[in-house]
Amino acid sequence: MKETISRITSVDKKVGKDVQHRLDNLTKPIGSLGKLEQLAVQLGEITGVTSPVISPPASLVFAADHGIAAEGVSAYPSEVTAQMVYNFLNGGAAINVLAKKSGASFTLVDIGVNADLEGTGFINQKIRYGTGNFLKEEAMSREEAAAAIKVGINVAEQVVEKGARSLILGEMGIGNTTSSSALLAYITDKEVSEVVGRGAGVSDDILRHKEAVIKQALLLHKPNRHDAIDILTKVGGLEIAGMAGAMLGGAAQRVPILVDGFISTVAANVAVMLAPNVKDYLIFGHLSQEQGHRVALDRLEGSPLLDLNLRLGEGTGAALAFSLLEASVAILTEMASFAEANVSQEKKES
Amino acid sequence: MKETISRITSVDKKVGKDVQHRLDNLTKPIGSLGKLEQLAVQLGEITGVTSPVISPPASLVFAADHGIAAEGVSAYPSEVTAQMVYNFLNGGAAINVLAKKSGASFTLVDIGVNADLEGTGFINQKIRYGTGNFLKEEAMSREEAAAAIKVGINVAEQVVEKGARSLILGEMGIGNTTSSSALLAYITDKEVSEVVGRGAGVSDDILRHKEAVIKQALLLHKPNRHDAIDILTKVGGLEIAGMAGAMLGGAAQRVPILVDGFISTVAANVAVMLAPNVKDYLIFGHLSQEQGHRVALDRLEGSPLLDLNLRLGEGTGAALAFSLLEASVAILTEMASFAEANVSQEKKES
Repeated sequence: MKETISRITSVDKKVGKDVQHRLDNLTKPIGSLGKLEQLAVQLGEITGVTSPVISPPASLVFAADHGIAAEGVSAYPSEVTAQMVYNFLNGGAAINVLAKKSGASFTLVDIGVNADLEGTGFINQKIRYGTGNFLKEEAMSREEAAAAIKVGINVAEQVVEKGARSLILGEMGIGNTTSSSALLAYITDKEVSEVVGRGAGVSDDILRHKEAVIKQALLLHKPNRHDAIDILTKVGGLEIAGMAGAMLGGAAQRVPILVDGFISTVAANVAVMLAPNVKDYLIFGHLSQEQGHRVALDRLEGSPLLDLNLRLGEGTGAALAFSLLEASVAILTEMASFAEANVSQEKKES
Repeated sequence: MKETISRITSVDKKVGKDVQHRLDNLTKPIGSLGKLEQLAVQLGEITGVTSPVISPPASLVFAADHGIAAEGVSAYPSEVTAQMVYNFLNGGAAINVLAKKSGASFTLVDIGVNADLEGTGFINQKIRYGTGNFLKEEAMSREEAAAAIKVGINVAEQVVEKGARSLILGEMGIGNTTSSSALLAYITDKEVSEVVGRGAGVSDDILRHKEAVIKQALLLHKPNRHDAIDILTKVGGLEIAGMAGAMLGGAAQRVPILVDGFISTVAANVAVMLAPNVKDYLIFGHLSQEQGHRVALDRLEGSPLLDLNLRLGEGTGAALAFSLLEASVAILTEMASFAEANVSQEKKES
C-alpha cells in the first residue's frame, strides 16, 4: 500500500489551464457548458493530456457480507449478497446493463462473501467469510483490512494495465449501509442520526433500530479517528476497504475514478485519508437518496453530476454519469473554435 | 394545425402501469432507480408499448433572427445567427457533437434567419428575414406565426416518418432570450424581473436595459393572454413558433420529445396552450442557468433530468439527457426479475 500511495502524484494543473483555454475559444459563450467544462478540465488534469482518453471504462463491483446484518438492520436477508453475485455473473443486474451501455468491462470481486461461490467469471480474493458483527466484536483484524485494501489496489491496477482508461466503482453487500454509517460517524464526528438512512428501504422501526445499533457499536469501539485502517478494522466492510484500495490503485495509474453513492463515497473518504492526492482523481457520479451521502460528499467537497433519486448502489449512478464524461471529452476535442468557424466573438462593451 | 392537434391523444396510462409492474419485479429494491423508473414509465405511456424504442433520435435546430436585437439586448451581434448556421452545417457546434454522440440525425431549419443562406444541407422554410422589432411593431403577423408553427409540425412529422423515434429540439437566434422572456411574462403574468436573465452572458447594465426594453414592449402590446398565437404575433420568435410546432408534430406521432432549456421550455408552454395533451409527451432535459427557466418549467410541472449549469441552447441539454432515456429503456428491457435470477425478495416485516 505504501508503495502505491507514493506513486499518487498531484494532478497536472498546467494541462487543466490549457484545456480551459481551448474551451474558452470554442463556438459557444464562455462557460456556457457549465459542469461539462469543469469536467473536461479535471479529465485533462488527471490524465495529463489535453485530449483525454477515458474509454474503455472498467466497472468493478466488490462484494462482501456483514456480520452486523444479524442484528436485523437490512431490508433483505444476507443470502441476497451471494444471490446477487450470481445475478451479476449472469448479466442480469442493473450495473450489468449500465456498464454494457457505457462500453465498460465488468469485473466482480468476491472479497468477503459469506458463501463459497461456484462457477467462474469472477475474481476470488475472499479475505474472510463476511465481517464480524461489530456490535459484539471488531469487524476484522488490522491485517485483514490492509489485505482488503491491497486486493482493491491490485484489481484496479490490473484492469488499467489491461487497457481500462477509467474506473466505475461499485459494491454489493447486505448490511453495508450500516457499516458505512458507522464509518462515517467516526470519520466526521457527526451524530449518528445525520449519517444513517434507509439503505435498500427499511421501515421507520428498522431505521430507529439501525441507528440504535450503530450508536451502541460506537460506544463499544474506540478507534483512532485519524487512522483509516483502524476505523475499517472496528466497523468497516471488506468491500468498502476494497473500493478504497481501488481508488488508490486508479489514482496511482492516473485514470479518472467514478464514485457511486453513499457506500462508495464513504470508501472515497477512507482513500483520501490514506492518500490526500486521491481526491482530485475522483468524480462523483450522483447524489444518492441515502441521507448520509451529502455528509460524505461534503467532507470531500464533492459536487455530484446527477441527482436522480437513485439508491441502488452497485456502481449504477457512477455508470450513468460516464456518458457525461464522454460528452465533455467530445466537446473539448470535436467542437470548432471561433477562428476555425469564422464566428464573431462576444461584443466588447464600451 | 387543427388537424394535427386533433390527432394528439392522451398517453397510454395502462401501458405505464404494466411498465411499473415489470420495474417492481426487477432485481433491485422497489423504486431504487428513482427518476430512471419514472422515465421508463413515461416512455411506455408515450410510445404505447412496454418495450419502448426511442432510437434513433432526431436533433432539430430552428434558426431565426430577432428585430429586438437592434435594441442592444444581446452579448453577440445578430450576424452570429447566420454564422452559427454555417457552423452547424459544418458540424462544429456543440449540438453537432452531442447529437452525433447520441446517434441522432441532425436537421437545421432556416425559419427566419436575416440572411440568404448559401449552400445545401438545411431545410429552407424561411417565413421572413427575422422578426420585427417588437419595441416598435408586432414581431410578425398572425399568418406568419401560424405558418411558422406549421413548418415545425411538418419537419417533425417528416423526420418521424423517415424513422426517428424521438426528438431533440433546439434553437439558434441572437436575441431570442429577450423574446422568450416577453412571451413568458405574458403567459404567466409574472413580473419581468422574474423571467428575464443574462442570455448568452450580458453584463449587469445590459441586463437592466433588457428588462426595461421588455417592460416597455409589454406596455405597447396587449395580446390576449389565452391566445398563444396572438402572443407569438406580438413578441414571439419564428424559431420559437417552429419548436412549438415540432412539439405538436412529435406528439401527434407519439414520440418522446426532449425539451432543452429556457427558450425551448417557453416554446413548450406555447405548444401546451395550443394542445394540452402535448404535456405528457415532453421530457425536460435539464435546468438551465437562465433564471426564467424555472418559471417556465413550473407552469408545466416539469422536472428536469440534469442540472449542469448549462446555458447554451441549441438543444445541447436535451441531447445530453438522451443517454438517460436510453439507460431507462435498457433497465426496463434487459434486467433480470427476482424470479428469473432466483434472488430473494424483500423481507416481510411481522
